[in-house]
Formats: sequence, C-alpha cells, structure tokens
Amino acid sequence: MKELLEKNLKKVYETLETAEKYYHAASVLNFDLETICPSSAMEKQGETGAFLSNEGYKLLKSDEFISAAEFLYENRDDEDLDPLDRELAETLHRAYVKIKNLTPEMNHEFSLIYNKAYIDWLNAKQGSDFSLFEPSLEKVREIEIKQITLRDERKEDFYDEMLDGYERGMTSRDLDEAFGLCKERLLPMLEKIKRSGKVIRRDFMSREVSDDAQRRMSKYLLDTMGYDFERGAFTTTEHPFTSDIARDDVRVTTHYYPTAFASSMYSIIHEGGHALFGQLIPSEHHDHHIADNMSLGMHESVSRFYENRIGRSESFVKLIYPEAVKLFPEALGDVSERELYEALNIVEPSLVRTEADEFTYTFHIIIRYEIERMIMDGSAKISELPGIWNDKYEKYLGIRPGNDKEGVLQDVHWTFGFGYFPTYALGNMYNAMYFNRMKKEIDVDSVVSSGDFKTLNGWMADNVFAKANLLTSKEWIKDITGRDFTPKDFLDYLEEKYGELYCL
Amino acid sequence: MKELLEKNLKKVYETLETAEKYYHAASVLNFDLETICPSSAMEKQGETGAFLSNEGYKLLKSDEFISAAEFLYENRDDEDLDPLDRELAETLHRAYVKIKNLTPEMNHEFSLIYNKAYIDWLNAKQGSDFSLFEPSLEKVREIEIKQITLRDERKEDFYDEMLDGYERGMTSRDLDEAFGLCKERLLPMLEKIKRSGKVIRRDFMSREVSDDAQRRMSKYLLDTMGYDFERGAFTTTEHPFTSDIARDDVRVTTHYYPTAFASSMYSIIHEGGHALFGQLIPSEHHDHHIADNMSLGMHESVSRFYENRIGRSESFVKLIYPEAVKLFPEALGDVSERELYEALNIVEPSLVRTEADEFTYTFHIIIRYEIERMIMDGSAKISELPGIWNDKYEKYLGIRPGNDKEGVLQDVHWTFGFGYFPTYALGNMYNAMYFNRMKKEIDVDSVVSSGDFKTLNGWMADNVFAKANLLTSKEWIKDITGRDFTPKDFLDYLEEKYGELYCL
Repeated sequence: MKELLEKNLKKVYETLETAEKYYHAASVLNFDLETICPSSAMEKQGETGAFLSNEGYKLLKSDEFISAAEFLYENRDDEDLDPLDRELAETLHRAYVKIKNLTPEMNHEFSLIYNKAYIDWLNAKQGSDFSLFEPSLEKVREIEIKQITLRDERKEDFYDEMLDGYERGMTSRDLDEAFGLCKERLLPMLEKIKRSGKVIRRDFMSREVSDDAQRRMSKYLLDTMGYDFERGAFTTTEHPFTSDIARDDVRVTTHYYPTAFASSMYSIIHEGGHALFGQLIPSEHHDHHIADNMSLGMHESVSRFYENRIGRSESFVKLIYPEAVKLFPEALGDVSERELYEALNIVEPSLVRTEADEFTYTFHIIIRYEIERMIMDGSAKISELPGIWNDKYEKYLGIRPGNDKEGVLQDVHWTFGFGYFPTYALGNMYNAMYFNRMKKEIDVDSVVSSGDFKTLNGWMADNVFAKANLLTSKEWIKDITGRDFTPKDFLDYLEEKYGELYCL
Repeated sequence: MKELLEKNLKKVYETLETAEKYYHAASVLNFDLETICPSSAMEKQGETGAFLSNEGYKLLKSDEFISAAEFLYENRDDEDLDPLDRELAETLHRAYVKIKNLTPEMNHEFSLIYNKAYIDWLNAKQGSDFSLFEPSLEKVREIEIKQITLRDERKEDFYDEMLDGYERGMTSRDLDEAFGLCKERLLPMLEKIKRSGKVIRRDFMSREVSDDAQRRMSKYLLDTMGYDFERGAFTTTEHPFTSDIARDDVRVTTHYYPTAFASSMYSIIHEGGHALFGQLIPSEHHDHHIADNMSLGMHESVSRFYENRIGRSESFVKLIYPEAVKLFPEALGDVSERELYEALNIVEPSLVRTEADEFTYTFHIIIRYEIERMIMDGSAKISELPGIWNDKYEKYLGIRPGNDKEGVLQDVHWTFGFGYFPTYALGNMYNAMYFNRMKKEIDVDSVVSSGDFKTLNGWMADNVFAKANLLTSKEWIKDITGRDFTPKDFLDYLEEKYGELYCL
C-alpha cells in the first residue's frame, strides 16, 4: 500500500511541478501585461499567456493525473500519507468534482463568453451605458448556473454553491445574519455621524505631491511593514494588485495620483498586507503544493488588517508622520499628526466602492450581495439592475448614482460570475476577531508606534497565516480565536473608533 | 505537387507558431529577469524560461517538423513556393544541418558547460582572477570544436565556420584584409591625435544629473528618433539591451549613472537604433517567420549608425542641445553646442571596450579577433591569454591593463564561444558604406538638425532594413550600395571627422 501511495504521490507531484512552470510563466506574462507591455502587443501576449495556462490545465485534466490524485483522495486516511498531502488530495478532489463533467468544448465556449462579457463591460462602462453589457451579463448568469447543474454534488442553493467557490463553508444564511446585524447597528450610527457637526480638516489631502515623492513614500511604507524586497518588487499600474508569482516572488503594484497622495499610501499598505501573507506562508505549504489554498476572505482580511486596523490607526499615523512630513513637505508642512489621522478616517457616503471609507464600505458590499441574490433567485431581471442598484444606494447611503458608470457598471466582477463581493466584507469581520485576540497578547499600539513589525508580523505568521491553507474560514477563525464567526467584533470596533472620532 | 507543398508548408507554419509562443513567453520572462525580478526568484525564473525554450526546441527537433521543412528545402525552386517561404526553407535547412548530428544528450551536456563557464567567468571577473575561468574556457574551446566536427558540411577553417554562425558569408580572410587596413591607416592617425595638443573641455561630462532628468532625456531621445512607444517600452537594467519580444513589442533598456549623463544618452540611442530596425522590418517577414534572419553585423551596423553616425554628429548635437540644456541645466548651463559636440567625441585609448570612443573602438575588436584566431589555431594556450591580451593593448593602444578584470575578463562573450566580436567592427564598416549612398540621396545634415527622422528612418527602412532578412551581409551591402564590402568608407569617415576635430 505504501508503495502504491508513493507511486501515485510521485505522479501527482511531478505533474503539478510541470503545470506550475506553465502557471509561473503565465503569471510573469500577466504581471508584464499589467505593468509595462506596450498597448499594441497586449492581445498577442494575452494569447500566449492563455496558451501556457491551457498547457498547464491540460496536464491537470489528464487521465493519469486524475486517477493518481483520486487514488490519494480515496486513501486520504492512510497513516502513511503526510497530513499536508492529505490536504492536497482533498483540494485536488474538490477541484476535480467541480469540473468533472465540464467537457473541453464547454470550457472553451464558456471562456469565450466570459471574455466577451469583459470586453462588453469595458465598452459599456466607457460609454456609461448598461444596455451594452446586458446581453453578456445575461449569458454569464446562464453559464454560471449551467456549470453548477453539471456537478454531481452541489449545494441546494445555487448562490451558496457559487459563494463556496470563493469562500468554502460560508453560506448565504451566514451572510444574511451578518449583514442584517451590520444594517441594524451601522445605519443609525451613520445618521449620527452625518448629524454630528464634527468638522474634519481635509484641504491638504488634495495638495499636489510628485510621483517621485509618492514612490519614495511607498518604498518607505513597504520597508516599514517588513516587506522583503529580495523576494518581491513593486512598480506602478492602473489598478493596484498583488501577484504571487512564485514562492520567492510576491510583487505589489500601486498608482500615483498627483492630487491624492493618500491613495497610493493606502493602496501600497493594502497590497503590502497581501504580500506579507504570501511571503510568510509556511514554506512546507509550498513544498506540498497547497500554498494558495486559503479563501479570498482570509486573504482580504489580512490586507484590510494592515490597511485599516493598523494603517489607519492613530499609532501608525504617529509612526509614519515624521517621514510623511519630510517626503511631502508642501502638502503636510502645516498639518498636525492628529489632523492627518482624522483626515485619513473621514466617514462620507460615496458612490464608488474602491474609494469608500472603512465605515461605509460594508454597505457597498451589502448592496452587491442583495442584488446578486436577486439575480440568482430570479426576482430581478438583468435589465432592471441599474434602477435596483441606484435605489439601494439611495436607501442605504442616501446618495444616488447619476449614471451607470458610477453605478452598476463600476466593478469588473460580474463579468466572471457571482459570489465574490461578500469576501471583502467577511475580511473585515475576520480581522476584527483576530485583532481582539492579538490585543490580549501583544501591546499593539506600542508595537505599531515603535515600528516593531517583526513582532506584529511574527504574531500574524504564527496565528493567522500558519493554518490558513488547511482550514475553511469558519474553522480557521475558530482555531485562531476559540470563537465562532461573528460580525460583532467588527461592529464594536467601528462604533468605538468612529464614536471617538465624531464625538458621539 | 502544389498540394504536397502546401501540406508541408502548413505543418512548418503550425509548428513554428506554437514554438514561437514558447519563445515569446521565454523572452518576456527574460526581460522581466533582467529588469524587475527579485534576486531570490531569479534562479527559478531562469529554470522556467529554460523549460519553455526547451519545449519550443523540442518541436523544432521533431521528426515531422524536420521532414516537412526538408521537403520544402528540396523543393525550394518550385514556382509555387513564395520567395519568402523559400527563404524560410533555406534558413531552416541551414539550422538543421548545424545541429543534425547533435544528440539531445550532447546538447544537454554542452549547455551545462556553457552555464558553468558563465558562472566561473562571473566569479573570475569578480575576483579579477583569470585562473578561475581557465578550465571552463578550455572546455568551451573543446566543445565549440566538437560541434563543428559533428557537422556533415563545414568550412575548411574552423574559425570561419564559427564566424559564419554569426555573420554568414564572412570569412577570416575578409577580416584579415579589413583589419589590416584599419591598422595601417588608424594607428598613425592615433599617434597624431595623441600629439595634436588639442584640448577638449570635458569637466562638465561628470557633473551630477538626477535619474529623473536622465529618464526624461531618454524618453525625449527615443521620441525624437521615431521610436514607437505603442509597440515598445523602456526601463532600466544593469546592462542595456534591446529585446525583440514580439512583432509589436520591441523594448529597450538603459542605465543611469549619476555622474555620466552621456552614458545613458548614447546607450539609449544605440538600443533605440536596434529597436527601430526591429520595429520597421517589413511586416511580411514576420508573417513568413524570417523576421530575425539578419546577421549580427547588420543589426550592429544600424545601432551604431544611430549612435555614432547620427548621434555623435554635429547636426544631431545641434538638434538636441536646447532640450539637453533644459533638462540638465546644472550640468550644461555653461556649455556651448560645440563644446558638447567635442566632448562627446573625445578620442582616448582606454581599457574597456564598452566605454571606448568611436575611433579606438576597432582596436578593441582587432585585439579580440587576433586572440580568437590564436585560440583556434592553437598558437596560444588558454593559460597565456592574460599576458597576450595585455601585450596587445600595449602594442595597439599604448596602455596596459592592471588586472584581469579590466583586461581579458571584461567581456562575457567567450563563455558561449568565439567569432562574435568581429560583427561589432563590421557594423561600423557597413554603415559607413550605406551612409555614403544616403548622403547622395538626402541632405542628412539638414534632415537630422531639423529632427526629420521620418525621412531618415524611411530611407533606412526602404534601403537598409528591407532586404536584411533575405541576404548575406556581403550580398546586402552590395545590394544597397552597388559596391563590394570594404572598410575604406569607414576609415575615410574617421579620418575626415577626427582630422577636423583634432585640427590635423
């Protein structure tokens, strides 16, 4: 038996190692495409990347690989199997079950639909005209449902099945509860904030800062956070992102807006958080090919932990204030530490999710979640979405988009399916829970204000990163905190922080 | 017959298109490796690149591909074959003949030797100790010879066979003649220059200029030259290079030295010249997979044409002077146009080839050529190279390297073989010949000083680039100028230009 296990394990490893070469190359090509590739060459480079990904995919769809992987899965309780290989076997099995009945022809057909949806969305957004995207979005809905109906095993609720693809183990029932509580507690508070009369100085936030000064600030922030430049790099893009290119190559990107210096600062801290997660994942998870097993919500919890819980805290502003004044003397010369802290935390309902403050952010997600559910249960027609969207913004945030571009067309996500958005909000809730444990074990304020990120990141690595690849979100948060998932810690935090800031 | 031709042509095209996807990806990976890849990830990324190249190579070594390609070659005179496909068939056949008897095992063994030679050379150069490189260089010599002896068809002289790999049709006899004339005419003139007493102001050449100003200058120069940024990009590297990544993606790199602004200016013009060649090659050469058929000497003739014939001319200095003063006010504020021109053309024997001026450059090549011949005919032992090298520098340039690092170890080229260096000198000779024809047809000085690179590049595209992929160097230069290859135009040019500059 041991021999058979080893033989199949060897086959699985060899195939994964070759497939990973293709994915590695495709990642580099994609990073290049987003950062430096000239416009006329993009289409061809996209095709080459797709070709490589498909070569990798073919290996994982081969009968020999599947039979070896399934053998491991069937014998996953064998004591000769390393627990990390058991994890691998389970992961491969889950992926296999999802695409088992998906023929290459269907896969190809669906790819074309997603690609067309992306292009139609781009055009629709550019022209601010939802009707240009409508037929494609209808098709995306159809093929999302079709893919689920093809599965031998699936959840009762189609939306739950989709959500499971991004956040295994989480259900719409969990979300309904969590978001219900958010609305219950945050909506009245938002009213209070609006009526508080508190005036926060913000004139300096739009003062001009050169790209070069912002670049040096980004470098300083990454250095301060403990980002390892020998195992990473940073450059600029239109849309900031983090790319886990290889085990020793986790790159981040940012953008520089001349009159919004805080934008590059907090996008680099956010991406830096993702990158620290990638850089500090246990090495043996790479060895066993399960290094990117964690859910999107877990990953987002870490990036938002660094961006908001740490980055927008008073102690962090205290830490970086001297360097910020030095690098941006013309913008911050007449600004106090407290003024900077307050300006970085202004609460203000806005139309665009990616520019939302920490407090109102959750409503952007709730709106999308509620609409996704309506799309899936048939209670909303695709053609009605712009109106539904606008009504919900008016209902929750008291503002109404003037057009589709800053309304229903703002995000790319629906071009590739539904169920992704909730992971953003879950991330905030997870990190609030583990932050509360962290507070008991280390003096976070003094650690942050003294710039001791070694201690902070060490705690994160030991407690948050260590088992992220081995557990579902719910198991993981229970493992870290000893408590079941709840949004309460997050809501308590918002009430305390913004109560103080707005003197409520 | 027509049907058979088409069938085989289809097979050849399909295989090349797939292989080119692998090479395209490998090029992007290599560009990334040289420009942004973090240090800890380089080894793995190199492996992934090698894996992809090898996948491409395997396709071209497959029996089906070779039999289809050889069928085309055997029927290359068939009137149904497009002349560009005939060219392709001949190119594939030449490549096939060279590696026909090279087994994959040998190929692998040789790769390891070249790789080790590169690493040993790096270490030897770092420690300035030739003995660390000696055993590897001995092995490179052995396997270079072995590869030639494996060929069914080969030239009598082994060095000619090697040279042919870089510059098809050129022989050591041609080089002996050309370099003989160079020595005869340039050595006495160099003496005159040294004794001329002419003082050229150079203090400003080492004044400090920021990276950002140099970057803007590089952008301006590329723009001025007519480099197409929609089909290219530029960034920084240790060693500047041009990368023909894809038909619509020709990228250049440069470096910024704070106290040597001219270095980035002329490296970007040099690489920009290579890039214009790549960007302006006839589109149908890409369609027929012969777009990189030209010899190294031809390519170098173009980069040196832009760098030296145009870039270091008085009319070019006149064109860029106002922008240079604007971008580098602290370095050039007190410098006249003529002073800048003269400083950019100072003649001074120096030890390092890549830093040599236009006049003494050829001697750096002559020295390497003479040593390569001695290595191949056995008249020099590898262990004796440092001394031979230093003696030749003393003999031709009157200066002697103080150590191996600035002597025999300065260049990487011998880690992958012999016969490459002469192409650099040939490039200068070729462009002098076609420059003389160009002068008759367009008013180069006024075209350049007015910045009309559309006319200049148009002439180059029509006359120089158009047939570069279809002819050997000798055929090509005859086709452009109606004359046989000769170094005389180059020597006349040097004598005239430097005679004027040094008032001889």
